[in-house]
Amino acid sequence: VEKMKRLGRLTCRKIWKVGKEDKRRVIHSLKVGISLSLVSLLYLMEPLFKGIGENAIWAVMTVVVVLEFTTGATLYKGLNRGLGTLLAGLLAFLIERIANESGHIFHAAFIGTAVFLVGAMTTYMRFFSHIKKNYDYGVVIFLLTFNLITVSSYRVDSVLKIAHERFYTIAIGCGICLLMSLFIFPIWSGEDLHLSTVAKFDGLAKSIEVCINEYFSDDNINQQEEKVRENSMEMEDPIYKGYKDVLDSKSSDETLALYASWEPRYLRSSSWQQYVKLGTVLRHFGYTIVALHGSLQTEIKTPQSVRVLFKDPCIRLAREVTKTLKELSDSIRNRRKYCPEISSNHVHEALQDLIDALKLQPRLFLSTNSNTNILLALATLATRQKSGKDFVASLSSVNNDNSDRLGLSHDKKSLRATLSKIGMTSLEFLEALPFAAFASLLVEIVARLDLVIEQVVELGRVAQFKEYSHDDVVI
Amino acid sequence: VEKMKRLGRLTCRKIWKVGKEDKRRVIHSLKVGISLSLVSLLYLMEPLFKGIGENAIWAVMTVVVVLEFTTGATLYKGLNRGLGTLLAGLLAFLIERIANESGHIFHAAFIGTAVFLVGAMTTYMRFFSHIKKNYDYGVVIFLLTFNLITVSSYRVDSVLKIAHERFYTIAIGCGICLLMSLFIFPIWSGEDLHLSTVAKFDGLAKSIEVCINEYFSDDNINQQEEKVRENSMEMEDPIYKGYKDVLDSKSSDETLALYASWEPRYLRSSSWQQYVKLGTVLRHFGYTIVALHGSLQTEIKTPQSVRVLFKDPCIRLAREVTKTLKELSDSIRNRRKYCPEISSNHVHEALQDLIDALKLQPRLFLSTNSNTNILLALATLATRQKSGKDFVASLSSVNNDNSDRLGLSHDKKSLRATLSKIGMTSLEFLEALPFAAFASLLVEIVARLDLVIEQVVELGRVAQFKEYSHDDVVI
Repeated sequence: VEKMKRLGRLTCRKIWKVGKEDKRRVIHSLKVGISLSLVSLLYLMEPLFKGIGENAIWAVMTVVVVLEFTTGATLYKGLNRGLGTLLAGLLAFLIERIANESGHIFHAAFIGTAVFLVGAMTTYMRFFSHIKKNYDYGVVIFLLTFNLITVSSYRVDSVLKIAHERFYTIAIGCGICLLMSLFIFPIWSGEDLHLSTVAKFDGLAKSIEVCINEYFSDDNINQQEEKVRENSMEMEDPIYKGYKDVLDSKSSDETLALYASWEPRYLRSSSWQQYVKLGTVLRHFGYTIVALHGSLQTEIKTPQSVRVLFKDPCIRLAREVTKTLKELSDSIRNRRKYCPEISSNHVHEALQDLIDALKLQPRLFLSTNSNTNILLALATLATRQKSGKDFVASLSSVNNDNSDRLGLSHDKKSLRATLSKIGMTSLEFLEALPFAAFASLLVEIVARLDLVIEQVVELGRVAQFKEYSHDDVVI
Repeated sequence: VEKMKRLGRLTCRKIWKVGKEDKRRVIHSLKVGISLSLVSLLYLMEPLFKGIGENAIWAVMTVVVVLEFTTGATLYKGLNRGLGTLLAGLLAFLIERIANESGHIFHAAFIGTAVFLVGAMTTYMRFFSHIKKNYDYGVVIFLLTFNLITVSSYRVDSVLKIAHERFYTIAIGCGICLLMSLFIFPIWSGEDLHLSTVAKFDGLAKSIEVCINEYFSDDNINQQEEKVRENSMEMEDPIYKGYKDVLDSKSSDETLALYASWEPRYLRSSSWQQYVKLGTVLRHFGYTIVALHGSLQTEIKTPQSVRVLFKDPCIRLAREVTKTLKELSDSIRNRRKYCPEISSNHVHEALQDLIDALKLQPRLFLSTNSNTNILLALATLATRQKSGKDFVASLSSVNNDNSDRLGLSHDKKSLRATLSKIGMTSLEFLEALPFAAFASLLVEIVARLDLVIEQVVELGRVAQFKEYSHDDVVI
């Protein structure tokens, strides 16, 4: 009994949770219940039943099958069903006309052949990607209705009358569905797509933010977190959570766009294609963040000293990128045109800063011949430098105090200090790798951000969002 | 007329192409046609019709709706339909019993309420992710059948008889579908999933191969290709083609696994979950390849000299990785267990080689204080080095010939030569970045390859593939 009670409580909580996650689910459920009751009245109430008859049951069936969560899906199914039924009815009528001319046995054979041919052909048609995408349901209904009518026509004489009545009841069913989904708490696929796109931007921005903070956080905390992260790598990591939805968005985006393209509220269906395109670019952008996330987890750690060196420009760049992402998400959320001239310049400034920092700071000496020790070569050069004055020009940026101290002091202690200093800052190339990868991913992110901005601007144009600023000239 | 002809020819070619891409499509279409003709016989042939009656039409309907492309999908739909109908029939019968006890008016109200409640509740149930995934179709059919029976019961007295008959005809329809999809040219979802997984490995291997070749190919060709690539970035690039299917495989994988889990041929349904898991890891692996592909397209080019330096270890590593991927794909294709001990060691050897090469070759000098010019510091040190002998130890790996030549010659010409040599090999950190990113992505790829191998081994265990070698002890 105790177990049952617990199970019951668990189930209740589950039911509550599903409803709380998205209240529209409760609304939709009630809508289906009401629609079904309404359509049942056709059958249950005497006067209505007299007008329509037995076939009222088809209205019930239509409501069950057609009424979907979003308006777009309902319209897609309803219109497909209507169209499929109509076309099937016409074709069936044609075939019956031809069949009726012939004898009884031949009639049956003719019907059998027609059923076979139409069945095979329509099924084959469903493999065409365009039809599959836009009219799959309609084709199934076409096949269904065609078979029902053609086959029944063999036994029933008044097929036309039946088809007629059935069509009416199906129309009534579709009508109720459309009424329900268009006017009573409508749930728009377009709205869903719009919001999910906005959420994607926010998620990506969040990912980058956490990524950067983690990368430049203190080592101790980092290692602790790393342990936690590895345990829950695929689960509750905020970085993973941020980009996860973006990566797997392809099919849901396409479905939403398909349904949205049926919705009357947004007639410019090309704008939905633009959302899908934007989704593709965002996914492309997301892959870089996955790589960035991966570079947090590499085994070769970048020494703290290197990270500190580039901390500020990196953080600044990341902050600019997240800022831009948030601006983009805001502009889409408010259906405002995004103006790249006004907003995104800072990113490129920050990028330039990072590149400058990279240019300024370290130099990498590659010995093309592994036997030539570059240190020695340099040493020789430097010795010569003292006699030949032509070197001073090339080294003009030197801090003179330092060079004096280093160049003139013959103290052994100072030598050792310098040595250890150089030892500290001289790095294996291998150790610099992870940071280099990190930095170049940041650069890559900026490059892809430009593609994203391009698509957002295009979206603003296609979907005719309002202008960014009312002071601008309206195009 | 000319236009019509051309359109006709185009359509014909399209039809031909769809069939040629996958011959099973033609087979499936014929199967649907045959099944429909067969099931129509129930209605068309006198003796059969007498036994079954009007309701034979439901068998036709069932065939249209249930017979799907793959066996798994057909089973899923057929069993869901059967179960849904049965449960709905039972519930409807129960409710009718209760309703019959009451008066006529109350009867109608009772039916209306029941329809509303059951409609709202089942619709709400469809939002539970577990039910949505496995039984969505069954729930719809449940709702459909329940409504049909309950509502008709108001007008028709012999509901039980009708339900009975209808259930029989639906069972006949389902039976024909199952027969057709199980025994006549069956198309297995499991097989599809298996093959698509194998194809993914091949695609990834191909991508890495092309990536590496392009990276280390001559600059001229590279730039030419780049132009072409940028134009067709998202289209015919072989690298993109290789990993594209992997990235977007989530929903198709899950659908195939769902259907496959219904297929009797492979009863161990957990192995399908393992395929889905493997797909997830492969996608994770693929993201790195996307990043690798991205690093081919960065604006800052790695100088040829750096690339040449690491060409061999990189190419070797990539070759080992692709070899491993091909071995993995082979072992899955032949349903053979993969034995990581035998095969993957070379990858780690190659990785070690690359790391050694990276360790050996260049050193990176970072100045922690940007005003301290490292060159000068070095020069000072080197000057001192000549007096103090303690330096020789630290520089013991020096080629003495070289150091002599450089250290002792006071010739101005040789100085300039050395200078230009250093100028050539001394790199901005910024220029080394892209290569560093490239190399560290290769390292990352190896790390993720291990995860992939892990999942493949697990797959071999769960799906009970045959042992790798018969000499091994069978576990």
